[in-house]
Amino acid sequence: HHIPYTPHQYSASEILERSEKFYSLMNLRRSVRFISPEPVPREVINNVILTAGTAPSGAHTEPWTFVVVTDADVKHKIREIVEEEEEINYKQRMGDKWVHDLKRLRTNWVKEYLDIAPYLILIFKQIHGVHPNGKKKTHYYNEISVSIACGILLAALQNVGLVTVTTTPLNCGPQLRALLQRPANEKLLMLLPVGYPTSDATVPDLKRKDLNDIMVNV
Amino acid sequence: HHIPYTPHQYSASEILERSEKFYSLMNLRRSVRFISPEPVPREVINNVILTAGTAPSGAHTEPWTFVVVTDADVKHKIREIVEEEEEINYKQRMGDKWVHDLKRLRTNWVKEYLDIAPYLILIFKQIHGVHPNGKKKTHYYNEISVSIACGILLAALQNVGLVTVTTTPLNCGPQLRALLQRPANEKLLMLLPVGYPTSDATVPDLKRKDLNDIMVNV
Ligand SMILES: Cc1cc2nc3c(=O)[nH]c(=O)nc-3n(C[C@H](O)[C@H](O)[C@H](O)COP(=O)(O)O)c2cc1C
Ligand SMILES: Cc1cc2nc3c(=O)[nH]c(=O)nc-3n(C[C@H](O)[C@H](O)[C@H](O)COP(=O)(O)O)c2cc1C
Repeated sequence: HHIPYTPHQYSASEILERSEKFYSLMNLRRSVRFISPEPVPREVINNVILTAGTAPSGAHTEPWTFVVVTDADVKHKIREIVEEEEEINYKQRMGDKWVHDLKRLRTNWVKEYLDIAPYLILIFKQIHGVHPNGKKKTHYYNEISVSIACGILLAALQNVGLVTVTTTPLNCGPQLRALLQRPANEKLLMLLPVGYPTSDATVPDLKRKDLNDIMVNV
Repeated sequence: HHIPYTPHQYSASEILERSEKFYSLMNLRRSVRFISPEPVPREVINNVILTAGTAPSGAHTEPWTFVVVTDADVKHKIREIVEEEEEINYKQRMGDKWVHDLKRLRTNWVKEYLDIAPYLILIFKQIHGVHPNGKKKTHYYNEISVSIACGILLAALQNVGLVTVTTTPLNCGPQLRALLQRPANEKLLMLLPVGYPTSDATVPDLKRKDLNDIMVNV
């Protein structure tokens, strides 16, 4: 069954203005590692996750699970797991090169925001689904689809003035999956601490590439 | 060097309203396979790509290249490459299961939109970079980073009333890379035809999952 699709069409001046305004808004987004404990209305988080769920997905499989953690004990356990693995990553696994590449970000394995942020959103990709008869359902391009959904989620957060830092906690997936009791077909893709920035938050003074360095015309 | 980060903070009612409005807007997005030849201002496309370029990326590597094709001959060559591979995908490579899973979308290997859409945006991930001294530069999590950028690009398109269909043309990467003369460190991730929908465009009558089917509270 197919249905007509007739969205609103903006005028030439509206479309240009809207494209500029959205660019300006998104260009203010930064990964923020200093998150305030100030509460954030729960409904806003629900709307942001609903927005992520509007993403396209291979063969409309919607292969995502958003686990929203507010329980202080669980947040602290997540912090312990992540810090333990990250300390090994920094000191042993990744070597001098990785540590050097991250130097200007001044990141390390201590992640206070995991205790402090009002919400931790852990995003799992479902590497396959399950049919009603118990058989496996293929989830085409599940990692790409879930990453696209995360991009839309980041846009939704930025739109309401909330901050996060996109993280892919290396080697923590299995422990976090067990802690959160997610099924075996779900694998951790990202962990996003979400809240307002602290009043003294700082970010690395990074520049973004120019249009000519990312776009090619043919 | 680090700098203060003090974004605008919305009031409790503003934040809720903004989250609802953005959800409503994004929830109207659909993958549209009927694209009009009507011209779209070039500056809007530039802004949409600039917006995608605000995405986070592993260690700030910005591992993306957006190739914007407007040349009719090149578009037609892209169509030939994609249709030839897709016909093999549908008839031989992917098997009955894949074809069955796609049935309700009524897609097949004929892709008129590749000739007709005013813009084709081909998104390449840079699987590594190159240091000034010629050595390889590691691009951590490049596929995830570029997919996040695509999510933000899709949001930017939706924000201005343009449509696309997210596609990952199977087995076409090497031929399209050669056609567009992209270097060996770039691999095709996605192809997005972009324009206004035709006045008689239709979409499959799909539903999205409920919040409770995608969100878990802990
Ligand atoms: C990674 C990915 C690959 C896709 N590949 C194709 C494709 O090759 N051809 C196509 O017609 N649609 C493709 N789609 C679009 C999906 O079929 C579509 O997103 C899904 O059916 C949900 O519909 P919606 O986007 O209108 O919400 C793809 C989507 C994603 C995210
Ligand atoms: C896939 C991915 C993984 C990332 N992993 C981490 C991480 O583990 N820790 C961290 O502090 N930042 C991480 N980041 C954030 C990047 O360092 C950040 O996006 C980049 O430095 C650009 O800064 P911006 O987001 O403020 O524009 C990650 C970003 C992406 C896209």
